[in-house]
Amino acid sequence: MIENRLKQLGLFKNCSESFLQEISEASQIKKYDKGQVLFLNGDAASRFYIIISGWAKIFRETLDGSQAVVDIFSSGHMFGETSIFEEDIYPYSAEIVETGEVISLPLAHLKKEIEINNKFALEMLSAMARYRRHQDQEIEHRTLQNASQRIGCFLLRLTPQQDSTDIKINLPYDKMLVASRLGMQPETFSRALKKLAEKTGITINGATIEMKNLHQLSDYSCAACSSEFPCKDLQAAE
Amino acid sequence: MIENRLKQLGLFKNCSESFLQEISEASQIKKYDKGQVLFLNGDAASRFYIIISGWAKIFRETLDGSQAVVDIFSSGHMFGETSIFEEDIYPYSAEIVETGEVISLPLAHLKKEIEINNKFALEMLSAMARYRRHQDQEIEHRTLQNASQRIGCFLLRLTPQQDSTDIKINLPYDKMLVASRLGMQPETFSRALKKLAEKTGITINGATIEMKNLHQLSDYSCAACSSEFPCKDLQAAE
Repeated sequence: MIENRLKQLGLFKNCSESFLQEISEASQIKKYDKGQVLFLNGDAASRFYIIISGWAKIFRETLDGSQAVVDIFSSGHMFGETSIFEEDIYPYSAEIVETGEVISLPLAHLKKEIEINNKFALEMLSAMARYRRHQDQEIEHRTLQNASQRIGCFLLRLTPQQDSTDIKINLPYDKMLVASRLGMQPETFSRALKKLAEKTGITINGATIEMKNLHQLSDYSCAACSSEFPCKDLQAAE
Repeated sequence: MIENRLKQLGLFKNCSESFLQEISEASQIKKYDKGQVLFLNGDAASRFYIIISGWAKIFRETLDGSQAVVDIFSSGHMFGETSIFEEDIYPYSAEIVETGEVISLPLAHLKKEIEINNKFALEMLSAMARYRRHQDQEIEHRTLQNASQRIGCFLLRLTPQQDSTDIKINLPYDKMLVASRLGMQPETFSRALKKLAEKTGITINGATIEMKNLHQLSDYSCAACSSEFPCKDLQAAE
């Protein structure tokens, strides 16, 4: 069951049958409720995680309790794995933000496979390079896009970027969380969302956003992005 | 000459003599002047670079000419190498911002060595994981630190973080560039630097910043950071 799930992930495509079987036997699939913390920044790390359903947020907290959401992951995403390069310490905290199923896998198996299977190490490198680009883009957007453009970009990346009409997008999780994912205060987010509707003519109804076509958003948001629309990195990940 | 330089870099410590000799012979060391562009985002990539002296900025530009500085690198840093995972296309632009010497090396050799030398692939993975953490922190700081705290953090990371007194820090490159590295408009940077002096009692004289001890800065800036002072990642990199 877990073995089949792992085989569906591009990352494991060059792994041996024996590795997949061994790591699957040492893994668990479990339902986690919204609000459950999987690990904290600085905890000793022995397992990494792959999301089957639901959402998990990766965050870091300051001593005074302020929280920075580094990213929010959904189905198919892996997290906690980089602790093998961080002296087996988790470099961030992880919490379930939308109830779902998550596989937890032993880091020791991953570490061993990277050491003996060079093709797998190359797959990991390639995945890291893709994520690095994603982070570069995040830093770029925080520099160049205004708050409304950032929300527009977030919405564009949630939906298939084809030439369709009469589009409806649902926010994947609550607005407060979208705000923190985008590094905004809730008030800033509300004002910026309103401004986005004014600038682009989209309609906002609670968590549902409707528009005639995606160009309403892309004309506005992608003007302040160094990449072209449609987003190449999303196509590459498909 | 180039071979000795490469041997000093931790990344190449597990490479064979023959690899180091071959790549060195295919490499060039050259002086680049401030303002010279090494490559542009989207260019076909055949070489990567290691800085010997001076500074280089990594940036991306939107169609309307706005620029986001992703990072600024100094001596010992490598860039352009991730293009081997990006279909041999540079994922950002690079420009010399302080005249110095740079080695340019063929990507083909790097690619081949990663494919045949697993220990080297692991070194690359480890370096990527460290850089990922650095980017996570950058995203965190842009979320949680105010502009003055970000400048304080930038200064703290320029200097040896020991318990010394009567400290003098020189900005490594001009203020405009520091501002863009921190993702700030020049006016915001000037105001925030003035506020930093007021809040912490440090003295600013052109590009020279003086203080009695580092705690003046760390008490103020590190309050909005999830890591402890002194910065562990800097110690690890030494």
